[in-house]
Amino acid sequence: MNPVISRYPVPELKDLPADLRERILEVQEKAGFVPNVFLALAHRPAELRAFLAYHDALLLKEGGRLSKGEREMIIVATSGANNCLYCVVAHGAILRVYEKKPLLADQIAVNHRKADITPRQRAMLDFALKVTRSSHEIGDADFETLRAQGFDDEDIWDIASISAFFGLSNRIANVIGLRPNDEFYLMGRVPRQKKEQP
Amino acid sequence: MNPVISRYPVPELKDLPADLRERILEVQEKAGFVPNVFLALAHRPAELRAFLAYHDALLLKEGGRLSKGEREMIIVATSGANNCLYCVVAHGAILRVYEKKPLLADQIAVNHRKADITPRQRAMLDFALKVTRSSHEIGDADFETLRAQGFDDEDIWDIASISAFFGLSNRIANVIGLRPNDEFYLMGRVPRQKKEQP
Amino acid sequence: MNPVISRYPVPELKDLPADLRERILEVQEKAGFVPNVFLALAHRPAELRAFLAYHDALLLKEGGRLSKGEREMIIVATSGANNCLYCVVAHGAILRVYEKKPLLADQIAVNHRKADITPRQRAMLDFALKVTRSSHEIGDADFETLRAQGFDDEDIWDIASISAFFGLSNRIANVIGLRPNDEFYLMGRVPRQKKEQP
Amino acid sequence: MNPVISRYPVPELKDLPADLRERILEVQEKAGFVPNVFLALAHRPAELRAFLAYHDALLLKEGGRLSKGEREMIIVATSGANNCLYCVVAHGAILRVYEKKPLLADQIAVNHRKADITPRQRAMLDFALKVTRSSHEIGDADFETLRAQGFDDEDIWDIASISAFFGLSNRIANVIGLRPNDEFYLMGRVPRQKKEQP
Amino acid sequence: MNPVISRYPVPELKDLPADLRERILEVQEKAGFVPNVFLALAHRPAELRAFLAYHDALLLKEGGRLSKGEREMIIVATSGANNCLYCVVAHGAILRVYEKKPLLADQIAVNHRKADITPRQRAMLDFALKVTRSSHEIGDADFETLRAQGFDDEDIWDIASISAFFGLSNRIANVIGLRPNDEFYLMGRVPRQKKEQP
Amino acid sequence: MNPVISRYPVPELKDLPADLRERILEVQEKAGFVPNVFLALAHRPAELRAFLAYHDALLLKEGGRLSKGEREMIIVATSGANNCLYCVVAHGAILRVYEKKPLLADQIAVNHRKADITPRQRAMLDFALKVTRSSHEIGDADFETLRAQGFDDEDIWDIASISAFFGLSNRIANVIGLRPNDEFYLMGRVPRQKKEQP
Repeated sequence: MNPVISRYPVPELKDLPADLRERILEVQEKAGFVPNVFLALAHRPAELRAFLAYHDALLLKEGGRLSKGEREMIIVATSGANNCLYCVVAHGAILRVYEKKPLLADQIAVNHRKADITPRQRAMLDFALKVTRSSHEIGDADFETLRAQGFDDEDIWDIASISAFFGLSNRIANVIGLRPNDEFYLMGRVPRQKKEQP
Repeated sequence: MNPVISRYPVPELKDLPADLRERILEVQEKAGFVPNVFLALAHRPAELRAFLAYHDALLLKEGGRLSKGEREMIIVATSGANNCLYCVVAHGAILRVYEKKPLLADQIAVNHRKADITPRQRAMLDFALKVTRSSHEIGDADFETLRAQGFDDEDIWDIASISAFFGLSNRIANVIGLRPNDEFYLMGRVPRQKKEQP
Repeated sequence: MNPVISRYPVPELKDLPADLRERILEVQEKAGFVPNVFLALAHRPAELRAFLAYHDALLLKEGGRLSKGEREMIIVATSGANNCLYCVVAHGAILRVYEKKPLLADQIAVNHRKADITPRQRAMLDFALKVTRSSHEIGDADFETLRAQGFDDEDIWDIASISAFFGLSNRIANVIGLRPNDEFYLMGRVPRQKKEQP
Repeated sequence: MNPVISRYPVPELKDLPADLRERILEVQEKAGFVPNVFLALAHRPAELRAFLAYHDALLLKEGGRLSKGEREMIIVATSGANNCLYCVVAHGAILRVYEKKPLLADQIAVNHRKADITPRQRAMLDFALKVTRSSHEIGDADFETLRAQGFDDEDIWDIASISAFFGLSNRIANVIGLRPNDEFYLMGRVPRQKKEQP
Repeated sequence: MNPVISRYPVPELKDLPADLRERILEVQEKAGFVPNVFLALAHRPAELRAFLAYHDALLLKEGGRLSKGEREMIIVATSGANNCLYCVVAHGAILRVYEKKPLLADQIAVNHRKADITPRQRAMLDFALKVTRSSHEIGDADFETLRAQGFDDEDIWDIASISAFFGLSNRIANVIGLRPNDEFYLMGRVPRQKKEQP
Repeated sequence: MNPVISRYPVPELKDLPADLRERILEVQEKAGFVPNVFLALAHRPAELRAFLAYHDALLLKEGGRLSKGEREMIIVATSGANNCLYCVVAHGAILRVYEKKPLLADQIAVNHRKADITPRQRAMLDFALKVTRSSHEIGDADFETLRAQGFDDEDIWDIASISAFFGLSNRIANVIGLRPNDEFYLMGRVPRQKKEQP
């Protein structure tokens, strides 16, 4: 029996609107399984659509100085601060895969100050956590600190928006009790063998 | 000279993609002015589009037990807890207009426990603030408390999502220094005279 | 029917000791109504007398570098931090009247960092909130910061005492559930018309 | 050389207004020394007068269910929570003297939950600390808890006002760096021998 | 080159006192590597000896109702609350091994309320975190809650002591920047293959 | 009748293992009474043994720049922050005796920023409290601050370990409700007369 993945009813793929079903099948094709967040949020198709549009605008965006791995660092640090199990586990997996560093996600989730990251990435995560915890205290000095690390104002918007968006995600996941897929826990920790073997 | 409304460049209406320009003109038609959030977030069209889609999914949704005024109560309480000037002022105005109670927004922004609301609305806002501050501690007991006030699980999803979405909005507004339009401060505090006068 | 303004019995003007009655009539003459704090605290005449004496020593004092408007800024910021509805609403009104800036009180109550104030006033409010939240950590560096903004030590005493006194006021108002007069909410937001009309 | 008792100039007794000088001489007569709070606050005679009037209204009041010792318990617990050295030490001394229990003040200053007090006093101090820390969350349930311990609403006003007033006192003492008289530290810890010996 | 495992000099095994060297070799034999905590703390042999004696008294103790896995749950939850990377990673590994549940440690480190544990274990961890965060507020009610879950007072002592001891461990690890061995991150997540292969 | 000193059974001296009995008799010989912590923790002989070994390694250690009095300052400041009555009272007494300053312990327990200590000791206690409250945020800058005051890295280890160890002690004392011996409250406040009189 499968464990419950949400407090709320979880629709079946076949019952979803076509656009969402396609998107989910695409993800499944790529990841090998359907991340639970898609199915759980599909309980509200209009919200899921907006969620994915926002997600894509922030994470698929080309340009800027934030690598894909760095964007995931922001997500993992934010999710750790918000104690969101789903997001720590799922985005921790993606971070490991992107950065090809199997230890990094656990380090950042527990305490980014001890993580194997650059001073620039440290400043990026310090800022992301300030956005998470006390955005009303953010001011010029914070922008100066980031600029001194080579970020421009567009990068700062990116950091802030990613942290803010996943703060939304963390809260919904916490409220609905979203359960991470078992697959995420191990992903990126060991060399991917199956695909390499013909 | 107009005051600065955002740390970031603010596009002119004419330079915006058609869909966003139309949406903004629609709002302007209805409100009599363009709320600054539209122009400031239009610096990132893709993100604004997703933002509006999410916003509409939560606030324009039909059905459920949350009135339009109650949804604004959640926004004002959340924004007060996050010290977001733009959202307290702008959604405070909308709340006054919807509820036709000129005192309510200030009460909820400062301390919803002292506001002229029903016990059911008090429970709704207690929960919204728990989503804001410690969503990881939410559990069955919170659901029971809300059900005892007549909310069903779909309503609870609504409360949580509205609070979570405006937590995102609060953080971005705080980081970019989004300035509320002067018009919002007074809106809903005095009878609307101009329109009634031919 | 009038709404309840306090958990405690509220005396009638005619039953009050002469000195308090006179003071209250004076205020009524000036403001056009009796602020509820006078009536609610008159439940304890000796305490009200001391309260007013302290209030007057801090707010009616001549000299020093704090304008009357700046003293109200301190009160509004402190009361916002203490979530005191009465004091935010009533002193927000007085602040608007003194400074003739209809937006200022809402800005300071929600987040003084985003308010239309000078850097000197920003430093003043930063200090007032430190008095409110962690006075035991105040030390030489805080005095230096304020002196660098042109305040002398007497001004600093004033800021600290105003913040501390209204911290007292906030706590009592919160405990007795003191309700702001409806008149305060709108005061100072629109041009005063009635008096100008003969 | 005497240690500095305040950041601010401390007036000499002879230079004070007659009413304050008399009051201070009275205290000196009774205590054997002048508590530093009188001299330090006398830097501002009008404020000191109001301070003493408020102090007397709360602590010299006859009637009610709060013994003099219990009022001092509230002061010590509040001052411990606010980390105010002067008030913990000075009122700790007075508490020991009133209650004739040499251990009680240290217990209450550090953790009233472990102090040798009655459940009624425990409830009184729980409430006083809630006034100190989160007065905006106080509501009917808090009143019920205290009533169940035999307090009436007038007693609750007393507890709240004493806690609130000494919160003011704590903040001013912390800002001016008010130093407790050395005499207070030992007072009430050992039997008073000198006076009894002719 | 090996990464730095501590801010402080790390002794070589051969330079350690015999008792510590033996203990460490024993652990190495069992685990396949020397956990960094042993080498880093061996910088202070007397303290390490005491540390190990305390550790063994709590974790090797026979009897009581806490299984070895449950003791590790307490350590992981406490270390998560204290943001201690070493302890989360190292004891997370041990927890996975003991409980044979590869997902459990990550769940408990991020938010034990969402972990696959029993209500009894949930109560155990709630209490452990109260010991970590506000032990001064612990009282009879906490003991009652645990007794209702089948724990006796000796078990409660165990929970409290394990949480308190690893609070010590967390603080030292954080200060010296103790780095978890790479081996821990993966341990218990995949079936142990190597040893089974002859 | 003696007051209860612990929630747990307290063994009699004669029933203790010989090594613990001897240690306790030694302390009794020196102090004139048996500090309750020995008897209360003797409920768990193995843990007490480890506790004493750790205690001795930190407090009896020769060398380093921390005087015995300074080590007690760290304990008192830490215990004040953790609201541990036993440790504030017992180690406050020892601090007074070591430093021969009867006022110092109360000052440090309430607010070390106002205590009669050197800037070097102030930095030491600032760091000890950071270890207590947010050890995960400790980094290079904290080490630099302490080095600038003349501490070397071994001293910093000492400060951290003493604070961490007494954080453990505070938590256990709080959970078991450990009661300070009455003798501690007065110790070091008045000249020791009895022993000098033959």
